[in-house]
Amino acid sequence: MTATILDGKALSATLRGEIDAAVAEFTSQHGYAPAIAVMRAGEDPASVSYAGQILKTFEKRGMTASLHTLPETATQAEIVALVQQLNADPAIHGIMVQEPLPKGIDEAAVKAVLSPDKDVDGVHPVNTGRLAQAAPVGRPAGVAPFFVPATPAGGLEMLKRNDVAISGKMAVVVGRSTIVGKPMALLLMRENATVIVAHSRTPDLAGVCRQADILCAAVGRANIITADMVKPGAAVIDFGVNFVDGSMCGDVDYEAVKEVAGLITPVPGGTGPMTNVMLAINVLEAARLQAR
Amino acid sequence: MTATILDGKALSATLRGEIDAAVAEFTSQHGYAPAIAVMRAGEDPASVSYAGQILKTFEKRGMTASLHTLPETATQAEIVALVQQLNADPAIHGIMVQEPLPKGIDEAAVKAVLSPDKDVDGVHPVNTGRLAQAAPVGRPAGVAPFFVPATPAGGLEMLKRNDVAISGKMAVVVGRSTIVGKPMALLLMRENATVIVAHSRTPDLAGVCRQADILCAAVGRANIITADMVKPGAAVIDFGVNFVDGSMCGDVDYEAVKEVAGLITPVPGGTGPMTNVMLAINVLEAARLQAR
Repeated sequence: MTATILDGKALSATLRGEIDAAVAEFTSQHGYAPAIAVMRAGEDPASVSYAGQILKTFEKRGMTASLHTLPETATQAEIVALVQQLNADPAIHGIMVQEPLPKGIDEAAVKAVLSPDKDVDGVHPVNTGRLAQAAPVGRPAGVAPFFVPATPAGGLEMLKRNDVAISGKMAVVVGRSTIVGKPMALLLMRENATVIVAHSRTPDLAGVCRQADILCAAVGRANIITADMVKPGAAVIDFGVNFVDGSMCGDVDYEAVKEVAGLITPVPGGTGPMTNVMLAINVLEAARLQAR
Repeated sequence: MTATILDGKALSATLRGEIDAAVAEFTSQHGYAPAIAVMRAGEDPASVSYAGQILKTFEKRGMTASLHTLPETATQAEIVALVQQLNADPAIHGIMVQEPLPKGIDEAAVKAVLSPDKDVDGVHPVNTGRLAQAAPVGRPAGVAPFFVPATPAGGLEMLKRNDVAISGKMAVVVGRSTIVGKPMALLLMRENATVIVAHSRTPDLAGVCRQADILCAAVGRANIITADMVKPGAAVIDFGVNFVDGSMCGDVDYEAVKEVAGLITPVPGGTGPMTNVMLAINVLEAARLQAR
């Protein structure tokens, strides 16, 4: 039996349609569009390319996107000053600080300067903390509104839009990064899954993974999740972005695992296309919160 | 084989000795003692009693402790104003807001007003977020200094002081509260354990618990952890505080489990006595950070 393919391209197209309608409604109501500022120091090629993608995506949605760059030689004070200027600008609703920042820059200190209300990338510790403190879904959250990093938010959306049951299920997240693994674990916990966070020090990774009704891979190593590690029928969400012989692949041995799993995200075309869309949803939400 | 009893009374006495020496050194160096402010609105009997304990404990350590009370009828604005006054007072290094606050008060909004630098109880979302974002121990944390809630910090200290291996081990935390379960899970993750967070919606709680080399119970239900749920030789940390027929007990069926576990904390006399001591350590650390 071959797994159902969770098509991130198709789902992101559906979501773009929903966003376009919501942005049009917001804009006609308020007289301005939701606006993101992307900022970067230096010319890291991947950052340059990603910024271009974001600007194009947002403009197609009827949103405003601006790029703010500093040279590679920018100091901590100059970077912080730019963040503060964007924080203070009422015409900007969301700010994304592109990483990596130049060597010697204290990234944590830059993130901590972001206004949490404009931190649409969910990197400020107060947003991580609210996610961690939030009560399970269905109850009052008990915390102020918060932003979740777009990549794990996209993974969760794929599960929900495909009617994958989460509450009462076993979920395994392999990888504990700040931007994917840990927030994904916290999101699944909020949805009432029993969550295992596995990583490089996990003694029996295969045995741990085989417990998963929902298996999320966020390691950054090609083919680390093999077919013997997957429970038959499991939903497999692959956040990995790796290049092998010039081709993009995820963390999951896709060809073999899709014969065991019940649902699976391909790479490319799975979680990747969801990320910009979830970022756009966060910017729209930030604009709404700031318009109150 | 009977488990080794992890004696919280004895360990907290050892730690008090260490704190007393460190407080004396701090005080002679700076000319003032580390100071905590405990604040409360209303006269909840458990809060009144706990405040009394804290004040006594801190004064015995040579630290300064002050109590700040508002009536049960205090408004949100009055409570927030008191927090802000304590934030601004340079003679106070740590603030603890006692819960429950009166009905109708937005507790999350009160916590969010606390200065994170004085949040020695680790309840501000920025402190939770830094704990969640912090890199594994042994690497640069990658975040600003932060405070961990005293109860889970005490549980971790008991493991460490008894040379329980954590890295590479399986840890199960039963309960996902903001004040114990979730921070304990994040602490164990930082220490390189593979962590499972189980709760009321976990399908096979016994099977999940039996995976644990380190089993932490933070549910608040007497005897929910029975002997058949414990892997022989496991370290069992009981955070539960329950009363059955007027006697205090934990979440673990202590008499039966101590015949299976390798190490176990009793209730009373286990994690409980550690809490005030860990709070004192946090206040000393806050005073040090503010003296820089």
